[in-house]
Amino acid sequence: MQTQALFCHGEKDLRLGMTALDAPTDNQIDVRVERGGICGSDLHYYAHGGFGVIRIQQPMILGHETAGIIEAVGKNVTKAKVGDRIALNPSLHCGKCSYCEAGLHHHCADMRFYGSAMRNPHIHGAFRDRIIIEQQQAEIIPAHVSPEEAALCEPLAVCLHAVTRAGSLFGKKVLITGCGPIGALTLLAARYAGASHITVLDIAEKARKTALDLGADEALDSRGDLSVYKQNKGFFDVCFEASGNNQAFLTAIELLKPQSTIVQLGLGGEFTFPVNALVAKELAWRGTFRFDSEFALAAKLVSKQVLNLKPLISDVLPLKDYQKAFDLALDKGKSMKVQLAFS
Amino acid sequence: MQTQALFCHGEKDLRLGMTALDAPTDNQIDVRVERGGICGSDLHYYAHGGFGVIRIQQPMILGHETAGIIEAVGKNVTKAKVGDRIALNPSLHCGKCSYCEAGLHHHCADMRFYGSAMRNPHIHGAFRDRIIIEQQQAEIIPAHVSPEEAALCEPLAVCLHAVTRAGSLFGKKVLITGCGPIGALTLLAARYAGASHITVLDIAEKARKTALDLGADEALDSRGDLSVYKQNKGFFDVCFEASGNNQAFLTAIELLKPQSTIVQLGLGGEFTFPVNALVAKELAWRGTFRFDSEFALAAKLVSKQVLNLKPLISDVLPLKDYQKAFDLALDKGKSMKVQLAFS
Amino acid sequence: MQTQALFCHGEKDLRLGMTALDAPTDNQIDVRVERGGICGSDLHYYAHGGFGVIRIQQPMILGHETAGIIEAVGKNVTKAKVGDRIALNPSLHCGKCSYCEAGLHHHCADMRFYGSAMRNPHIHGAFRDRIIIEQQQAEIIPAHVSPEEAALCEPLAVCLHAVTRAGSLFGKKVLITGCGPIGALTLLAARYAGASHITVLDIAEKARKTALDLGADEALDSRGDLSVYKQNKGFFDVCFEASGNNQAFLTAIELLKPQSTIVQLGLGGEFTFPVNALVAKELAWRGTFRFDSEFALAAKLVSKQVLNLKPLISDVLPLKDYQKAFDLALDKGKSMKVQLAFS
Amino acid sequence: MQTQALFCHGEKDLRLGMTALDAPTDNQIDVRVERGGICGSDLHYYAHGGFGVIRIQQPMILGHETAGIIEAVGKNVTKAKVGDRIALNPSLHCGKCSYCEAGLHHHCADMRFYGSAMRNPHIHGAFRDRIIIEQQQAEIIPAHVSPEEAALCEPLAVCLHAVTRAGSLFGKKVLITGCGPIGALTLLAARYAGASHITVLDIAEKARKTALDLGADEALDSRGDLSVYKQNKGFFDVCFEASGNNQAFLTAIELLKPQSTIVQLGLGGEFTFPVNALVAKELAWRGTFRFDSEFALAAKLVSKQVLNLKPLISDVLPLKDYQKAFDLALDKGKSMKVQLAFS
Repeated sequence: MQTQALFCHGEKDLRLGMTALDAPTDNQIDVRVERGGICGSDLHYYAHGGFGVIRIQQPMILGHETAGIIEAVGKNVTKAKVGDRIALNPSLHCGKCSYCEAGLHHHCADMRFYGSAMRNPHIHGAFRDRIIIEQQQAEIIPAHVSPEEAALCEPLAVCLHAVTRAGSLFGKKVLITGCGPIGALTLLAARYAGASHITVLDIAEKARKTALDLGADEALDSRGDLSVYKQNKGFFDVCFEASGNNQAFLTAIELLKPQSTIVQLGLGGEFTFPVNALVAKELAWRGTFRFDSEFALAAKLVSKQVLNLKPLISDVLPLKDYQKAFDLALDKGKSMKVQLAFS
Repeated sequence: MQTQALFCHGEKDLRLGMTALDAPTDNQIDVRVERGGICGSDLHYYAHGGFGVIRIQQPMILGHETAGIIEAVGKNVTKAKVGDRIALNPSLHCGKCSYCEAGLHHHCADMRFYGSAMRNPHIHGAFRDRIIIEQQQAEIIPAHVSPEEAALCEPLAVCLHAVTRAGSLFGKKVLITGCGPIGALTLLAARYAGASHITVLDIAEKARKTALDLGADEALDSRGDLSVYKQNKGFFDVCFEASGNNQAFLTAIELLKPQSTIVQLGLGGEFTFPVNALVAKELAWRGTFRFDSEFALAAKLVSKQVLNLKPLISDVLPLKDYQKAFDLALDKGKSMKVQLAFS
Repeated sequence: MQTQALFCHGEKDLRLGMTALDAPTDNQIDVRVERGGICGSDLHYYAHGGFGVIRIQQPMILGHETAGIIEAVGKNVTKAKVGDRIALNPSLHCGKCSYCEAGLHHHCADMRFYGSAMRNPHIHGAFRDRIIIEQQQAEIIPAHVSPEEAALCEPLAVCLHAVTRAGSLFGKKVLITGCGPIGALTLLAARYAGASHITVLDIAEKARKTALDLGADEALDSRGDLSVYKQNKGFFDVCFEASGNNQAFLTAIELLKPQSTIVQLGLGGEFTFPVNALVAKELAWRGTFRFDSEFALAAKLVSKQVLNLKPLISDVLPLKDYQKAFDLALDKGKSMKVQLAFS
Repeated sequence: MQTQALFCHGEKDLRLGMTALDAPTDNQIDVRVERGGICGSDLHYYAHGGFGVIRIQQPMILGHETAGIIEAVGKNVTKAKVGDRIALNPSLHCGKCSYCEAGLHHHCADMRFYGSAMRNPHIHGAFRDRIIIEQQQAEIIPAHVSPEEAALCEPLAVCLHAVTRAGSLFGKKVLITGCGPIGALTLLAARYAGASHITVLDIAEKARKTALDLGADEALDSRGDLSVYKQNKGFFDVCFEASGNNQAFLTAIELLKPQSTIVQLGLGGEFTFPVNALVAKELAWRGTFRFDSEFALAAKLVSKQVLNLKPLISDVLPLKDYQKAFDLALDKGKSMKVQLAFS
């Protein structure tokens, strides 16, 4: 059996095609995909044919932010049943390497992550009408929660993991640089984690407006006068750098107090900066990468509908309009999260 | 009364001169300086007339790594008595600002640190025959400990603080990039803190030999083949970056395991590096700056003679040979720590 | 000048009396007290004349959960002005001892805490019509926030500190044993800090109902069947023990996962328990005492009205009915937080 | 094939017997046991037929502190070869439960630990002439290290884990209550981890002498005058409670500073103590249980011979004198660690 899928063949070369759909084995689940969000890495493959030193070597199915309905289950599947709505965890760790053994599954030495060209042959993604997944990849979402919200579990998990990496945010003053989908979800996650003051910096007015809608205490243009936050060596306790922009980073370190933490979410090529600033303020700059147990937490929060996710979903387009959807997602002034609607 | 002191008047312009020596007030101590180590920042003032954006604006007495003998004490001084050998803590915090209030004295908003041109007028240093200090700056060192070792308390405190910033080193595999005086003292401090394996990287053979003498498990040329440490995503748990060299940093991040910590000791202008490396390995890069309570700990460890400090002191020259001493200290291939002998 | 105050003369012996009211000095503030909550320690003095080995030695004014309006300010006061509503921080640290120096102000060796018989002579409390305080004790609360809510800042600060002591609660499963005023405020604080699941245990139906009103995921009778939470070595990540009851503690340790944390808020004489349980599960049992910077955070959260505090205030009685108010506060089946209304 | 083993049949009932010795399967190793230390739990089975609620239900081979020489290996064994000396890790986790998945292997829900009656049927121990183990249980020890030292890996691992549980000891003042074998090994481990001052409390003169031989800064009789350590709210930063004695614990909490940590190693039935003491000083009392990755670290430190272990081994008796060995081990005034010498 075959199912339709969205392939990236290289820079600016997206094509619909068919891919095999086998029956689920004993521990597998057959899912009819409902919605799939376009992520920044999908956009990189589309716009540049890769990122950093990584290039697409063969046609690869994109997509790792998906939700769907279960069509069939293997005989050992107990976690979910036919008809359930689920969010799909796109990461599959090996369970045997030294990192898995230590409980650091997202650093698995043999990680298989949907829609990633880091390995060769690449690992195909989930932008398809139907997909077979492993039982442990499914997180049940109640039927009354929309598939659009369900498909936000994956980027939300990324941001929940970033919050975990920051240490406790309880009562802290938080700065977020960049308010695209990741910055915006981090804002919701930081608020949930007890941040008492959240300031967002972005050059785009639309992004600042979304930040305020989502509950930021303030949203400022990063090119404006920020001198009040530089007084007495800085104001913020924690920064989430979600822009991947070198200048945003340089601005942030001036606004941070000594011994504060910067969690780096944004990927942005090379950064250049004065090491003395890191040293003299004793800043801690931490990378954050994907997620581990936070996917289950994301599914829990989405299921309880305790986060105000809907303002984030700016556009939902049918799969056949994939070209328009990707171009829209690339235009940060016009869109926030763009999702594809499948079969 | 007047005492002799070593002033820096600008780039490559050191001169002996006289400075006032008042009687100690009630909480002060009059110290006859015995030894003073030449620090990297002293060398920056000498070689370049400053560092980063900071320039010497007026003649400034250098030096903040000193030890001496008490000549007289004010009437409220109970901590030490005439004739005691002491190490001089060169930092004076205000005790009133928000950072002092929070216990972060080394980030004091009104810090007065010996031999620093960060403030204007500059804060004079301790390269003088006699000096008046506050009672709380004195840490007693037993008479049987040499003044050379006593004068190492300050750089040792810097390295103890760096170790504190790294979190527990107990049973950890530690990489040290750069083995000048700071790298070497960090090696001793890391060993004391329970590191189970310490590898030192340096391009200078003399530095590598010193590292082995001080107890490193191995000392390698950073330009050699380090591929064995890159396998399985990296080998080391913690890195102390003590070179201030961009390339050393780039090498280090390849040798570190996911979620490991880099403590940045070295000051080195601007660094350029791929943010993706920080993100994908979830590295934590932390600055470390001077010291706080670690000065007292340094004095305690020096007093108990539990660290093998002597191999670090490569040269002791009389004050009158200050020119030769500074040039020697600049030549990393010929010297480790160079100290001046006062009156 | 004199002002009316509520004294405890010993067990079951409360009396109104007069106490001096001087003019504020330069850094002081004269406050007209509006509301004052009756705390567990006030109740101990009333019901037993003290607690543990501490006895009331001389008549002492009770009260440390108060809010009021500024009547006059000293000439150096810049933090607040006449007419402002404030919450009163009842703790005054010395700023000089080793604990203050280290930033641990609530462990000050010379702490003066309102309404406490721990020192002799005792430190009088704030149950009076007018009181002179130091400038730093005042936290401004906006006029649109009720004085009843403002007077909850102090017990809220206690619970915010307890949450701080627990480490990050983000995404954690939390158990709270005992849902009196402190358990209830801890529930609000834990929710604010990102706990994803909160279970409350209490034997009183009224307390369980309040817990559900305040947003607990569930509220259970601690005498019921809790076996589901004992499976697989336990269910909860963190427990706040707010009952001071030995049996509640013994129940809790069966429901907690290995390496979980118990924060002990409740004071309860002696506890007896099997050390093996602490060891085999590697539990961490941490005391929490009063608060430090959390008082300012409490004032901030009360000012922003982000916590649902009103269900906690069960009764407000005029000062003249102090006897009735204290008896009501003692009856946990009938009251939650009881406050006195002053002049 | 059969091999000789030491069984406990119940209280005061030890007997030599025979047990099966199969050939090693592909991942197994056949070991000729050289030395086996008698542990506190072995003594509990001998002296009381169990501990707490656990009783011996059927004859069980004792022993989990062993070292030996490899006699044969299965065909997949790459970690070690015939003739190697190894320390035997007595813990076997399942690798599949939620605790193993999270990297908390020592809390495995299906743990098989040598010589333990916690499960029924019991898990037999390693006091036998020959034993078949899994490959991952073997840690190679160089031939020049004595088998007596090698057999200390297991109790050392327990103490290294206790130190890990304490957080960083670097520059800390440490109190150890009880200086039997576990207290003594904790002393060595705490020193290795950078404790700057270690005080040992024990009522036995022999234990205090051993503590001083092993490098304690001081060793005091816990019944003596300790008032100097109670001043200013306490002196020590961390306590390792290795006595399991309620009174020792009560003494310790008076000597500890606010916010200090007590790591509980000693098992001792029920403790009774005033909860107020835990609360008012904000102490953190943490259990520590067995070990995880610390067994490999113990083997590394034993192999490098960086710890002074030999003073700890008070007696080595041939297996046939097991009765005498156990009685000697029970007599804390006469022995420290007693080991059995096997075939």
